[in-house]
Amino acid sequence: MKDIFYMKKAIKLAKKGSLTTSPNPNVGCIIVNNNIIVGSGWHKKTGMKHAEIYALKTSGEKAKGATAYITLEPCSHFGKTPPCCVALTKYGISRVVIATLDPNPKVSGNGVKWLKKHGILVTIGTLSKESIKINKGFFQRMTTGIPWIKLKLASSIDGRTALNNGKSKWITSDKARHDVQHVREKSDAIISSSETILFDNPLLTVRNTNNNDNNQKLLKHSKTFLKQPIRVIIDSKNRITPSHKCIKQPGLLFLIRIHSDNNIWPSHIKQIILNNKSKKIDLIDLVKMLAKYQINNILIEAGPSLSSSFLKLNIINELIIYIAPKILGNYAKPLFFLENYSNLSDVPQFKFEKITQIGKDLKLILTKHNSS
Amino acid sequence: MKDIFYMKKAIKLAKKGSLTTSPNPNVGCIIVNNNIIVGSGWHKKTGMKHAEIYALKTSGEKAKGATAYITLEPCSHFGKTPPCCVALTKYGISRVVIATLDPNPKVSGNGVKWLKKHGILVTIGTLSKESIKINKGFFQRMTTGIPWIKLKLASSIDGRTALNNGKSKWITSDKARHDVQHVREKSDAIISSSETILFDNPLLTVRNTNNNDNNQKLLKHSKTFLKQPIRVIIDSKNRITPSHKCIKQPGLLFLIRIHSDNNIWPSHIKQIILNNKSKKIDLIDLVKMLAKYQINNILIEAGPSLSSSFLKLNIINELIIYIAPKILGNYAKPLFFLENYSNLSDVPQFKFEKITQIGKDLKLILTKHNSS
Repeated sequence: MKDIFYMKKAIKLAKKGSLTTSPNPNVGCIIVNNNIIVGSGWHKKTGMKHAEIYALKTSGEKAKGATAYITLEPCSHFGKTPPCCVALTKYGISRVVIATLDPNPKVSGNGVKWLKKHGILVTIGTLSKESIKINKGFFQRMTTGIPWIKLKLASSIDGRTALNNGKSKWITSDKARHDVQHVREKSDAIISSSETILFDNPLLTVRNTNNNDNNQKLLKHSKTFLKQPIRVIIDSKNRITPSHKCIKQPGLLFLIRIHSDNNIWPSHIKQIILNNKSKKIDLIDLVKMLAKYQINNILIEAGPSLSSSFLKLNIINELIIYIAPKILGNYAKPLFFLENYSNLSDVPQFKFEKITQIGKDLKLILTKHNSS
Repeated sequence: MKDIFYMKKAIKLAKKGSLTTSPNPNVGCIIVNNNIIVGSGWHKKTGMKHAEIYALKTSGEKAKGATAYITLEPCSHFGKTPPCCVALTKYGISRVVIATLDPNPKVSGNGVKWLKKHGILVTIGTLSKESIKINKGFFQRMTTGIPWIKLKLASSIDGRTALNNGKSKWITSDKARHDVQHVREKSDAIISSSETILFDNPLLTVRNTNNNDNNQKLLKHSKTFLKQPIRVIIDSKNRITPSHKCIKQPGLLFLIRIHSDNNIWPSHIKQIILNNKSKKIDLIDLVKMLAKYQINNILIEAGPSLSSSFLKLNIINELIIYIAPKILGNYAKPLFFLENYSNLSDVPQFKFEKITQIGKDLKLILTKHNSS
């Protein structure tokens, strides 16, 4: 019970890094000596100290004989920082409680082995689900090579995204559209299509989220920590030009193409050629490539064609649908273009995860039918 | 503050009649003498005593000099029961607090006038909104001549009601379908179409709701109180025959037609001829006719054609949509057949009133955009 109590606190601490640690996971650490919390820390940003180091430094002498509660297995290899396992022994920690092992198959279990070898008592699995939940993208990328993929949509209650004449501004309310900024800021990359750019000419950046109380708290240590997601535009026909708003907007942008062109592109634009036999951009290749760029969380913001292509591949982990209390009718544009199913058992299934009212609209979060 | 406190109790009592009082409204009454509740009552069923009479009888002598809290203006005319106003004075009540006036324009205000004339102090308007809310159908029928109209639908998250081949069994889960029984039992009439009867051959009755705890409580005084809603089938082409399941099933059923036929119908079937110049059944005429049958609450359970016709008339007070976490795609059948709108400002708008999860599905209750 005590272990759960302190691990909950460590997870709460870990969440403070939710907007800033990626590609690293969120990690929190609490050091407890004789039922007194003597130190705590959390990981802020890649290249900065790990949670354990902050916690040990605040504990000082009091770490001797204490228990460390860590939301993720401590590292035992020299990366950008010296290994946390060494620090834990150096400070005299006698027991380590770990929520879950490191999912990186190259290092998973090594920290535990190291600690045990150095006479430290190790408990594994306390609130493991919760710890994995706050690092879904990191865990999925490490274990499958594919980032966590969210698909964002906005529709009427009868599942329509635009009128027959294309008008869709605006089906949902200001508040719902502002909420999208918060979904974006939790993403490492936003995938969109050249169709969306040609039609809407969006910036695809995170804007005006600093006035949010929670973000103020998360970012108060340094506003510069909030990073813009990488914008990824699928442009197989080279239709995007240097004059589009998203191109002029600073911030890394990947143009995913089959062939490069001879335009002069700003330095923050990177043409990535994804060619294969089919002469089409393979979306699985794309998300695997993004995983290699250490992208944990992808947000898809596109029209029904690209959204449907991802849906058919069965790689959407989360659907985020903003629903306005309007009815657009049968002439309006559908949410998805799918096949003509013969049986209800064949259709894509999800499960409702979280329902909130955002202003006049509903925000539905659904997860893959079989994902936990 | 005390008035609100006691009126809340009276409204809670009134709700006990929610499945049984129609066509009468739900009414509760609390009698308070010197800060002590000395009597209480609620209306159970048309023809039975009014709430005030029960409350006065339980108070007896203690009603003298007491305050009566009544959720609706007491009657002053001799109807099926002697007027409550007379009883209130006879028992020596000195003050009456009324949530709201009787909406029936023929009698509204008469009770208050009578009480004042007999030296009783009258306060009007305590929790009036709450009192109207528990009698929405009654108030709307009395003030507009049109019952409260609910439209029930079931769809996928992309707003589809069936696959292209017509398969719709079942999009939603058992639990959601069972919940529909509770929606039916709160209705005085269910409107459906001959299309639905020919395709699904449903009974359109309330079934298996007595195992519900709340209903057990509501009905414990007498199970016979739960009445079946009147089934109303729009059958302009005389396609329903005596062999359909809903016809064989006992319980009043109105066949709404343009011409009668020569079939021999069971005595619980009533052919109602609604003819007009257009040779079509006018849905406004239909609901006004049902209001004359003292129908307070109508539930529409039909396919997209009839549902859309009601929607276009702008007389739907409440939309009840069960949404399954499935995606049926663009080939599947739409929720509504409407016009090809040119502007988003022209589309039907509602507002989300209540969202609940029923098993795997969502139940959305929406109300008319401008209704309170």
